[in-house]
Amino acid sequence: MAGTVEQKLTAQGIVLPEPRAAMANYVGFVRTGNLLFVSGQVCANAEGKLIAKGKLGAGVTTEQGYAAAQGCAVNLLAQIKAALGDLDKVVRVVRLGGFVNSAPDYFDGPKVLNGASDLMVAAFGDKGRHARTTVGVSSLPSDAAVEVDGVFEVS
Amino acid sequence: MAGTVEQKLTAQGIVLPEPRAAMANYVGFVRTGNLLFVSGQVCANAEGKLIAKGKLGAGVTTEQGYAAAQGCAVNLLAQIKAALGDLDKVVRVVRLGGFVNSAPDYFDGPKVLNGASDLMVAAFGDKGRHARTTVGVSSLPSDAAVEVDGVFEVS
Amino acid sequence: MAGTVEQKLTAQGIVLPEPRAAMANYVGFVRTGNLLFVSGQVCANAEGKLIAKGKLGAGVTTEQGYAAAQGCAVNLLAQIKAALGDLDKVVRVVRLGGFVNSAPDYFDGPKVLNGASDLMVAAFGDKGRHARTTVGVSSLPSDAAVEVDGVFEVS
Repeated sequence: MAGTVEQKLTAQGIVLPEPRAAMANYVGFVRTGNLLFVSGQVCANAEGKLIAKGKLGAGVTTEQGYAAAQGCAVNLLAQIKAALGDLDKVVRVVRLGGFVNSAPDYFDGPKVLNGASDLMVAAFGDKGRHARTTVGVSSLPSDAAVEVDGVFEVS
Repeated sequence: MAGTVEQKLTAQGIVLPEPRAAMANYVGFVRTGNLLFVSGQVCANAEGKLIAKGKLGAGVTTEQGYAAAQGCAVNLLAQIKAALGDLDKVVRVVRLGGFVNSAPDYFDGPKVLNGASDLMVAAFGDKGRHARTTVGVSSLPSDAAVEVDGVFEVS
Repeated sequence: MAGTVEQKLTAQGIVLPEPRAAMANYVGFVRTGNLLFVSGQVCANAEGKLIAKGKLGAGVTTEQGYAAAQGCAVNLLAQIKAALGDLDKVVRVVRLGGFVNSAPDYFDGPKVLNGASDLMVAAFGDKGRHARTTVGVSSLPSDAAVEVDGVFEVS
C-alpha cells in the first residue's frame, strides 16, 4: 500500500485528533536518543469523550474494549505526530503497555488490546509489530475502560 | 534558581534518604548506555515508614496520596544519587510509571501522581517534565498507597 | 561456574520451552539498538499449561506464586533465545516488570517475584541483577497468577 502513514489511516477513516495537552507537570512524550516514550493514553475520542467507560467484565464488553483500545492507539499516534511532525519517522513500534480496567474475573485483556495492536499494524505494516504487556487493573483515570502507553524507535 | 539540584531540594526542606537496599536478587537501579532504569519505589519515608498505607478511595485521601507520590519521587532521587553520585547528571526525566493502590471506584490517580511529577519539576525544572502512565492497581507491596518507577536520561 | 548460560540452566533442571507464538499483531520481542524488549510472559509451562491459576491471597499461595514467577522467567529466557540464538549474548538484565494477580489484601508480591529474580541470577550471575517493579493487579490473561516482562541489554 503506497502513501504516507497518515494517508493510510485516512483511507481507513481514522483521523488523528489534537494530542491531549499536558494537564500538569508531565508531558505527552519524551524523546531520548532514538526512543520516543509516549505517556499513557486513555480511550478518549477526538472530542475528549471516553469511547468506553467502566470495567471489562462488569458492563463493558470485549468488543467495546477492542474499540476503546483502538482509540488509545489513535491517541498514541497523535502524540507521535506532535513529537515528530510526521508519522513516517517511526522506525519501529517497540512496545505497547496495555492496562484494561477489569473486574477480577475478566481474563480476555489480550482480545481488548488487539484493538491497539491491529491499528499499529494498519498504520505501519510490519514495523508496527511490537512487544506487548497486557494486564487487568482495578481502576483507570476517569474510569476509562482502557489505557495504553508506548515506546517507539524513531528517526 | 541557582545551585545544584540537591541545594534546590534542601531549600524546599527535602532531604534525600539513604536508598533502600536491595532485598533480594534485584537492585535499585540499572544503567544501560545513557538510560537509568530505577526500580519501583514505594511511599516510605527516610525511616522506612509508609507515608500512606491502604487504598485510595477506601481510607486514603487524594491529598494523602499526593504526599505519598511525592515520597516515592524522593526515593527515586535517592536511587539516582546512589547511581550517579550527583543529581545534576540527570539530563532528562524520561518516564514515570505510577501505580496507585485503588478501590475499584477511585478515578483520581492522576491527581495523586502529580505529587511525584511536581517534585521532579521542583528538582530539575523543565528537564523534570516527563512522559507518565498512571493506573490503579488492586494491591501494592506492604499495602503501600503508591509506587512509582522511572527511566532517566543521564550523562 | 563454567559453561554457557544454557548449560547452567540445564544443570539446574531447567529446559527452555519453545517460545509462545505471537497470537495476534504483536510479537514476543523487539530489539532496538542494544535493548531487547520482551513481551509480558504468563506463567505457562512448556506444555502451555498454567503453573498457577487464580489470585494470590485467594487460593494461590506465595510459594505457588514463586514457582509461577520462575516459570515466567523461563519463558522470558525462551524469547531471548529466539531473539538472539544464544543466551550468552545478554549483557545485562536491565528491568523486570512483575504483575501479580492479587486479592486486594495480598501484599507479598515481592516474595512472588523473587521467583523470577532468582532465576535471572541463577542464569546470568551478577549480570542477572536488575531493576524491578512489582504490583498487584486485578486480573491477568487466562487467569494466570503471574506475568512478567523484561528489558535486556544485549550484544
